[in-house]
Amino acid sequence: MKPAETTPRRIGILGGMGPAAAIDLQAKVLAATPAAADRDHLPVVVWNVPQVPDRVAAVLGAGPSPLPAMVEGARALEAAGCEAFAVACNTAHHWADELAASVRIPLLHIADAAIGVMARRPVPPMRVGILATRGTLAAAFYGERLARRGFRWMAPTEEEQARLVDTAIARVKAGDAAGARAPFEAAAKALADRGADLILLACTELPIAAEGAACPVPVLDASRALAEALVDFSLRR
Amino acid sequence: MKPAETTPRRIGILGGMGPAAAIDLQAKVLAATPAAADRDHLPVVVWNVPQVPDRVAAVLGAGPSPLPAMVEGARALEAAGCEAFAVACNTAHHWADELAASVRIPLLHIADAAIGVMARRPVPPMRVGILATRGTLAAAFYGERLARRGFRWMAPTEEEQARLVDTAIARVKAGDAAGARAPFEAAAKALADRGADLILLACTELPIAAEGAACPVPVLDASRALAEALVDFSLRR
Repeated sequence: MKPAETTPRRIGILGGMGPAAAIDLQAKVLAATPAAADRDHLPVVVWNVPQVPDRVAAVLGAGPSPLPAMVEGARALEAAGCEAFAVACNTAHHWADELAASVRIPLLHIADAAIGVMARRPVPPMRVGILATRGTLAAAFYGERLARRGFRWMAPTEEEQARLVDTAIARVKAGDAAGARAPFEAAAKALADRGADLILLACTELPIAAEGAACPVPVLDASRALAEALVDFSLRR
Repeated sequence: MKPAETTPRRIGILGGMGPAAAIDLQAKVLAATPAAADRDHLPVVVWNVPQVPDRVAAVLGAGPSPLPAMVEGARALEAAGCEAFAVACNTAHHWADELAASVRIPLLHIADAAIGVMARRPVPPMRVGILATRGTLAAAFYGERLARRGFRWMAPTEEEQARLVDTAIARVKAGDAAGARAPFEAAAKALADRGADLILLACTELPIAAEGAACPVPVLDASRALAEALVDFSLRR
């Protein structure tokens, strides 16, 4: 028997928003885990039920709340013995406080995970450029949490959001990763030109647009940071 | 409200054996689902807990049974409201009958899914060549189920298994997909030379070795067949 402190803790992933993002987060958890054999990987339970009202529409006041469906998933993960859980969708974190209050296990917040990685960089960023859906930007939790930790931040202009970021995200969703690269590069360059010294990818589609793209400043993938936070929690690091 | 018959049924995936295979099966389910939006995808719950005794060792009588850990996962999927479940590991199907008896929801068996796809081919195969781990071959359920449905089958010789199939699987597990291609091609050619007119990939690593490989006869991926069976069940097709 291994001593109790080396047994990895079971973690939950609340997905469905959309389902591909939950699969991507699982793959990032697998890649972030130091493992020599199957059994070294984390015990993970995934609720990947996509019958959830649209998050962006709800944040913008144009549709029903996804919170009840999210609470159902979080409670199922808790019932399955998970000791913490994460949500595989940036925009859904608009409801993080209510969601966390609905269960007794902790929610590992994607913005806290990303900010934690930033703060541990040898040279922490002076000004963070956020690329996200307009739902995530309207939800404002990234900006609030960055400011609380002392980071300055900026987002694209409305014109850049419509012409570049929304286009890059839509092209990835449509399966055109190559076509998403140029609008992503232009959006990242616009933020860097205005002083951003780190680009935060706060949307699960954007890492795909960023693959192989040229960017004048470092890029941080919030999903990868969340995967690392799940590994740290499970392995008690 | 959609009428009840169009609501997809929730399905469970029992994974962990290893965890990458469960992620791969989820990706194949996603790809096999006709969907125009997130919400058209299947509601899926995944138990991806890899703290399970080694399946190949247990089949060969050299280690403890993985059945109790598998039953725990199946019961958790049932408790989470899944209406059927599948196991993302070929060798683990050695315990399929006991596992199915431990819950009230049906187990969609990977061999039945693969044989169903074969039987629906315009020209069904006359003789199926099975490529699998030696654990799956020793478990014998593919051969028994193929024979029951009237299919003749063959497996590699012991020498081919050790030199080619075991090597291809080990190289994929070690991340060397390119190096797995040549032994896979040689194993498939050996079976085709002895009369196999279809190669069944009955191991979750082998589709990766088969990518871009030359094969003289058609290849059938049992994992893809299982993904299609999950989609058919969920959408009541």
